[in-house]
Amino acid sequence: MKILEERILKDGVVRAGNVLKVDCFLNHQMDISLFQDMAKEWKKRFADKKINKILTIEASGIAIACIAATEFDNIPVVFAKKNESLNIDGEIYSSKVSSFTKKRVYDVFVSKKYLTPEDHVLIIDDFLAVGSALNGLIDIVEQSGATVEGLGIAIEKGFQGGGDKLREKGYQLESLAIVDVLDAENGTIKFRE
Amino acid sequence: MKILEERILKDGVVRAGNVLKVDCFLNHQMDISLFQDMAKEWKKRFADKKINKILTIEASGIAIACIAATEFDNIPVVFAKKNESLNIDGEIYSSKVSSFTKKRVYDVFVSKKYLTPEDHVLIIDDFLAVGSALNGLIDIVEQSGATVEGLGIAIEKGFQGGGDKLREKGYQLESLAIVDVLDAENGTIKFRE
Repeated sequence: MKILEERILKDGVVRAGNVLKVDCFLNHQMDISLFQDMAKEWKKRFADKKINKILTIEASGIAIACIAATEFDNIPVVFAKKNESLNIDGEIYSSKVSSFTKKRVYDVFVSKKYLTPEDHVLIIDDFLAVGSALNGLIDIVEQSGATVEGLGIAIEKGFQGGGDKLREKGYQLESLAIVDVLDAENGTIKFRE
Repeated sequence: MKILEERILKDGVVRAGNVLKVDCFLNHQMDISLFQDMAKEWKKRFADKKINKILTIEASGIAIACIAATEFDNIPVVFAKKNESLNIDGEIYSSKVSSFTKKRVYDVFVSKKYLTPEDHVLIIDDFLAVGSALNGLIDIVEQSGATVEGLGIAIEKGFQGGGDKLREKGYQLESLAIVDVLDAENGTIKFRE
């Protein structure tokens, strides 16, 4: 998606350790007009899918998932939580996720009330690298008996391989920008054609 | 706001310890159409204010803040983060917040890049009880030299007093539902007139 790639080139900052900082428009300060364009693009790419629910993960997935929902007839958005909360009771689906940026493993969970075998789910997240968070969300949807209709990612770090593994498994993965080269030394960012 | 009050009466669950669970439409599964109605109501109530940025706090504030932004000409939304992250560098504004549901104190922070003395800020959050999170956000805005134009809350637990203290200080606080009685024994919820 050209406008997202241009924005990454304009405002993204490359850091050592394969880190791409986009906190000025994606995951700290958020550009809602850009998110609306991204939502329209996902709507187009998943036009033939019957989707009735969006699943994402806290925190920065929530913003793009909610704006995406406005293009999908305001279907409900569920976000997977990362820490056990006193406010969640009853049964949950859970999975283990390891964070690339925070260097730790944590549990993510969704209340069983909000995913059922009747659901057709679009999973949305901001970043895809090795795919740990996304695989955790897929695991949770499959535990529930719901159907994964597609995966919508803002920025995929293609060179880390998580996306291609999911494509090989047959999932429709729509990453709006796929970064194949990220070079901290000279700040180079190259996108997949 | 009548439709939010009706939704709380229909789907909210009262738990011991002044807990009001609204995770089926507000902070786990999210009703985007309801959030759009809430956004329109805040737009109306803050019609005379010049607002150029929305500030919220992760995680559940993000959804309503982003949908709110769509009613305020898609102004940028910034969310305060709760834990130090390897992806945030440079200088930050920070404040201490104690969580009512999680019974702990944590730091919240915003990068100095995203709040400046020129900003006129609407602070949005899902819940207001004693006001710890909201006071932390106000503290951060005031550290930056920006102006707090208003406070938009979905559900205020009026009987816990945080909201009235902020009104006494002169802030324009617009809570869309103010719960004045929450009785776990018989499940009673009463709203302020």
